[in-house]
Amino acid sequence: MRIGIIGSGALGLYYGAMLQRSGQDLHFLLRRDYQAIQENGLHVFSCHGDFYLPQVASYLTPQEIGPVDLVIVGLKTISNHHLIELVRPLLGDNTAILTLQNGLGNEELLATAFGPERVLGGVAFLCSNRGEPGTVHHLGEGKILLGEFRGGSSQRSHNLAEMFQTAGVPCTAVSDLRRARWEKLVWNIPFNGLSALLEKDVTEILNHPPSKELVKKLMLEVIAGANAQKLETQIDALKFSQQLISFSEKMDHYRPSMMIDRIEGRALELEAIYAIPLQQAKTANVSMPLIEMLFTLLDCGEN
Amino acid sequence: MRIGIIGSGALGLYYGAMLQRSGQDLHFLLRRDYQAIQENGLHVFSCHGDFYLPQVASYLTPQEIGPVDLVIVGLKTISNHHLIELVRPLLGDNTAILTLQNGLGNEELLATAFGPERVLGGVAFLCSNRGEPGTVHHLGEGKILLGEFRGGSSQRSHNLAEMFQTAGVPCTAVSDLRRARWEKLVWNIPFNGLSALLEKDVTEILNHPPSKELVKKLMLEVIAGANAQKLETQIDALKFSQQLISFSEKMDHYRPSMMIDRIEGRALELEAIYAIPLQQAKTANVSMPLIEMLFTLLDCGEN
Repeated sequence: MRIGIIGSGALGLYYGAMLQRSGQDLHFLLRRDYQAIQENGLHVFSCHGDFYLPQVASYLTPQEIGPVDLVIVGLKTISNHHLIELVRPLLGDNTAILTLQNGLGNEELLATAFGPERVLGGVAFLCSNRGEPGTVHHLGEGKILLGEFRGGSSQRSHNLAEMFQTAGVPCTAVSDLRRARWEKLVWNIPFNGLSALLEKDVTEILNHPPSKELVKKLMLEVIAGANAQKLETQIDALKFSQQLISFSEKMDHYRPSMMIDRIEGRALELEAIYAIPLQQAKTANVSMPLIEMLFTLLDCGEN
Repeated sequence: MRIGIIGSGALGLYYGAMLQRSGQDLHFLLRRDYQAIQENGLHVFSCHGDFYLPQVASYLTPQEIGPVDLVIVGLKTISNHHLIELVRPLLGDNTAILTLQNGLGNEELLATAFGPERVLGGVAFLCSNRGEPGTVHHLGEGKILLGEFRGGSSQRSHNLAEMFQTAGVPCTAVSDLRRARWEKLVWNIPFNGLSALLEKDVTEILNHPPSKELVKKLMLEVIAGANAQKLETQIDALKFSQQLISFSEKMDHYRPSMMIDRIEGRALELEAIYAIPLQQAKTANVSMPLIEMLFTLLDCGEN
């Protein structure tokens, strides 16, 4: 399959490299890493085994890539004002678009511009970061849940899941993408925000009992917001929040992406992870006062 | 009047110097500034006119001071575990104790140790800081509201107010000390905490509309907590919060003490300004969820 990657950060480079290694025809839109990858290829340092791709199809503009069968979007949501113009040149009559970006609102943006029938979304549970230009580091996890923006099962979503599995990426097609997105927010909203605000990692936060209690309260607010979104099945608040906290307690000083963004002075993905979820909850008459306060504090720190 | 000052920081030094200049017999327990003041006296740089006290009675232990008529406490509340042992040597049969410390719980501590009849409290609206050893800077304001810990009017409280007035310190005796303390918390709880957490001054906070809205919500929570404390008259929530915000909007990039403490790596006065008010509100069946979150975030940053 001819696949274009828009947003070749740690996530786009890692999944793209995995797919290319499995025999797919990959085309990467690059910026920071263009020259290094053109000249020396792409090195993947992975907890599942390192590998090297000497030849990588690299481009500086999406026009050079041209139509593909599948666009995978890994762009940071803070650059979503460029998303449409970056994706448009890659579309043929039957091109599908799969966004693996954080938070909410990404599928909606693509669906409004290109029609909802083209759009799929995926929730990626991946720990990766970029190293020197031309390298990407895969630290752990990597599973993807993907589904149709319009909801329901489709042959296409099952085919894509199979393609990822063949490439060594655990992947499941889900019929309720909205639920998968909100489930990830139950983790992202407390841990990304608190870690960025306090510049403390997951372990440091959970080792402070009042903060652990605050994490729980924030999770319960997210789940209340989620359960008002017409999900196929409701999220069990107590069970799911307890599961996520137990899971997080096993992490060894993990630094969420938003914490790293704050420390390195980059803009935070506040729109996708806070503003849009707050708006969707409000529309469903659910108030999330503690999350609103967290969003305000993060946003105040952005200026 | 023979007066001992326990806690000769910016507040203790400034009010003590004003009282000594007006003819009172002052005795300062000193630590950082002992040698400089012993050798060279105390320089006061004040927006109301500088002055200099060449002779200042300075001591390194409270035992050397011995009994006085009035103890004025200016100690940071983070050192309250030393408060009783520092005050005890200064007490004679009729010694009064006036604490001008921040937050709640200070009068209770003194009353439990020495009897409630000895104890008065004052709320100081003072902008001051210390300079080089032997100097104190008075930047603005300075008013004191003081009253009996047991409540009600007393000749003693009116005499003390008159003593401060004679010394050039605006001072009023109030019959409801508890209300005065909570009124100050309506400002301190939002602005001290947010400025320390975000490392933003009052102007920067108010220039960010969602944060200004958060300040209002925090103020309304404090006022709800205050109004459950058997005050003589209730605080008018909308009017008082609006007044305080208008007053704060006229400040020019003022940095609350807690912000300076955080930046300079000193412990924050979280017990007196957050923990005890939260506890008193809870006892009165008032929940303050946003303040609790703010306290948690500040406390997490302390480790």
